Formats: sequence, structure tokens, C-alpha cells
Amino acid sequence: MLILIFSYCFFTCVRKVEIIPIFDFPDVKHGDDVGLLIVESCRRCGIDILDNDIIVIASKIISKAEGLIIDLRDVKPSTQAYEISKLCNLDPRLVEVIIREGEVLKVKSGLLITFTRGIVCGNSGVDFSNVDGSGVRVALLPKNPDESARRVRFRIRELTGRDVAVIITDTCGRPFRRGAVNFAIGISGIRPFRSYVGRRDRYGYEMTRTSICIVDEIAAAAELVMGQGDEGIPVVIVRGLEYEKCEECSINDVVMPREDWLFR
Amino acid sequence: MLILIFSYCFFTCVRKVEIIPIFDFPDVKHGDDVGLLIVESCRRCGIDILDNDIIVIASKIISKAEGLIIDLRDVKPSTQAYEISKLCNLDPRLVEVIIREGEVLKVKSGLLITFTRGIVCGNSGVDFSNVDGSGVRVALLPKNPDESARRVRFRIRELTGRDVAVIITDTCGRPFRRGAVNFAIGISGIRPFRSYVGRRDRYGYEMTRTSICIVDEIAAAAELVMGQGDEGIPVVIVRGLEYEKCEECSINDVVMPREDWLFR
Repeated sequence: MLILIFSYCFFTCVRKVEIIPIFDFPDVKHGDDVGLLIVESCRRCGIDILDNDIIVIASKIISKAEGLIIDLRDVKPSTQAYEISKLCNLDPRLVEVIIREGEVLKVKSGLLITFTRGIVCGNSGVDFSNVDGSGVRVALLPKNPDESARRVRFRIRELTGRDVAVIITDTCGRPFRRGAVNFAIGISGIRPFRSYVGRRDRYGYEMTRTSICIVDEIAAAAELVMGQGDEGIPVVIVRGLEYEKCEECSINDVVMPREDWLFR
Repeated sequence: MLILIFSYCFFTCVRKVEIIPIFDFPDVKHGDDVGLLIVESCRRCGIDILDNDIIVIASKIISKAEGLIIDLRDVKPSTQAYEISKLCNLDPRLVEVIIREGEVLKVKSGLLITFTRGIVCGNSGVDFSNVDGSGVRVALLPKNPDESARRVRFRIRELTGRDVAVIITDTCGRPFRRGAVNFAIGISGIRPFRSYVGRRDRYGYEMTRTSICIVDEIAAAAELVMGQGDEGIPVVIVRGLEYEKCEECSINDVVMPREDWLFR
């Protein structure tokens, strides 16, 4: 009977991927050890971190741990910030922070589209949500998200002996689609693409272009259980996915060089 | 002991989302009943379809079932197709099919970026892969993907009594990122967005803009186990995700109207 149950489970569950939210993650403060917090939170939830797990982390907690919180009352807007703020109808102090963080590509009411950390994103990823500060304190994106991912990954390895991949993510709008989705902004230990170039389909046709950006797909998958509100689920484990390990890979591999942009 | 195992599992597994590939899906032919094929394939794999499962389907098998396969040898290119083919270095017969399917926005070597079925996509989604036809037969995207999704969903309900959501997907490149990801092109039974507007974060800050396009995130999540090659996994079940049911929702809700495009 047990063997039957086991074989049934093996048959149906093989290569199933799981998206596991880590509940009750603590509020993160400047200087906190995010790798340690992740390991402790997993233990509290009874979740063992396994080799090849992909740990997906909302950038907000990295920003908070790295102290990247700005109090707008301390910001003195430049003349340029004042000018742009008139066009977009945003607080000039916020505009000042946004334009320090990224290059402005488009201006619309309530939103600046900027290019920062290799991503085209609203307001340089600067935002008020999930920051303790009654609407006057904002979080910036991590300065070097690949490096932040690497640090957390190595710390998890140190604490658990497990070899995981880490992806740091942020939600961002898209040019031709309504609604935001989660994107990878920093990676460690995983090749960002799964390439089918040169591989054949079931009819023998050799594919010439298809390369899938799996780190963005993993980020999107993780967001499904993260939530953006008071759920407090900034860390998600993606388990059971086959991926290629890569020590030297960077999110910069995903960033399309400006000269290749077809839409401007 | 059993109770202990059960409570452990309940505690750790609660709200976990599973991405379940349906292996050994048969080759789909014109006229096939895709809903029936899905139900039969799940049964063969020992997978019960459950209420609230999200059935994610690669558009290619819908196209094949709907007979949307074009033999390029039957296509007579127009003058416009010949002209564009010189610019992009593609077979003029293929160009003819692409321009019939969508509006050309950009032309580059080997690729036309077009707007079709509400998505900005390479070559109007027309491609050779996973079509039986030694490189002269191409598949078009389904003509009305919402309607195709609805049909499959109702058929699954008829056969199993289960109320599921269906998302039809296609992989597509992005303007500022390398690599393609999977997008929703047709939906049935699911609200495409999870809105946080008016909801408060853990510090009481009221969010003003955040709306997440979960159907694109679900499409991306499913692609992680689909594969594009000879694996033959065109159908994936996403299980355990909380989502809002919606009878009247359409993928058109996700399509940003042309007048709102900031990048052209």
C-alpha cells in the first residue's frame, strides 16, 4: 500500500514546481542580516532550505536592511526637480530622489518612467509602500542588486550548507500592457536564460531564436504569493525547478543595451 | 505520528502554489477537442482536476486544434510583403502571413515587431516550431483566444464538474529586456488583476496605484515547466493560488489602449 502511494506520488509529482511563501517574516531594519532572517523564518515555519532552491526576495527588504530609506523632509529639490514636478504633479522632493536614481525617459501625471538599475520602471522604483514613515519616507532600490543577492546567497550557504540561487525582485509596469508584474533586478547563482537555440522540437525543426528569460518568469511566479500589502511575505522559495547554475551571471545579461531599443 | 505529519504538512504547505506539468500530452490535430485531451491526459497522469485550478495552455495546441496552420507554399506574397521582406530578410511568404495577422510597428533583421491580438510581439506570433511541416508550415495565433479559453473551460466543466480558470499563453519578447517570457493572450473565469489600490500596507500607508497583472504572472510561472522544445508539455495546472473568479473578464482588459502608449 505504502509503495503504491509512493509510486503514485512519484509519478504525478515529478518535476512539479512549488512556490512556497515564507509567512510571518519580521519587519526588516537597517543593518539586519537578511540571510539570517530568511534562515530563521524558514525554521520557524518548519521549512528546510534545500539545495537548488531559488530564494526570491522583494527588493524592499534589501533596501531597508541596506538603509536605503530617504526622509523627504531632508531632501532639497533642485531647479530641475521643481520643473519636472510641475509636469508630473508629484512632490518636488520625491522627483528629486527619482531623478537622482535614474534617467527620466517619459513624464506623465503622477508618474515618471525612468531607466535605473537596468530596468525601465515607474519613479525609479522609489516608493512609499511598506516603509515605516507615514508617507514622507521612501525606499530606493538596492544600489547593486546582484551584489546584494550574492551576499544573501553566501550567508544562507554559510548558515545551512545549502547551495541555493537568489533573485531580488521589484514590481514594474510594462509599456503595452496594463498592470505591473514582478521582474528580477539582481541575481546570484543562476543563469538568467534557458536557451532553445539549436534545439529541435518534436518534429525535428531546429529553433533559431527562442531564449526564455527564466529569472523574470521566476520573479513573476513568486509574486503570485508575495502580495504587495500587509501580508508581509517578502520572501518566497521556488522549489523543484530545473535551472543552470552560474557563478558569474548577472542581471546585466538581461538588460537590453540602449542601442538595441526599438521603442523609445 | 500520522497526526503530527499531517499538522506539519498543513502548517508548512498552506497557501503553497504548485505548478504541475501534464506530461505526455498527445500531438494535437485539426478538429481535436482540447478540453477532452486535457481531461484524458490528466487522468493518464493520475492528476485529478480540482475546483479553482488554473489550466494554462500554450496557444500552439489551440491553433493546431482550430486548424490555424498555413502552408507557405500556398501563400502568394503581396507587393508590400516583398518590400518588407527585403528590409527584414525573411521569406516574403512568411512576411505576407505576418502582415495579414498584425500591424507592423518595427522592422529589424529577421524579425517584424507587430501588434496583434492585443499583444506587441515578434512576427505576429506566427512561427514554425512544434508544427509538423519541415519548415514550410507555420501556426497562427488563435483568432479569438478568450473564446478559445472559454470553450476549453466549459468543456472541462462538462467532463469533470470542476470549475477551473483557463489561460491561453504565448511567449513574446520585451522591449527593454533580453529573452522572451510567457504572456496571457486569452483568459476565461479569472479576473486578470489583483488590485491593491486603497489597501493599506503593514504601516497603514494606503496604496494608490499598484495593480498586479496576475494572468501574465501565471503565464510566466507555467512556462517554467512547459519548455519550448520536444518536451511536449503544452498544458500546465497552477494549483493553490487565490484569485478572483470573473465570468465577463477578457484579456482586452490587460491590453493598454494605443493612445496610452508612452513608447512608440
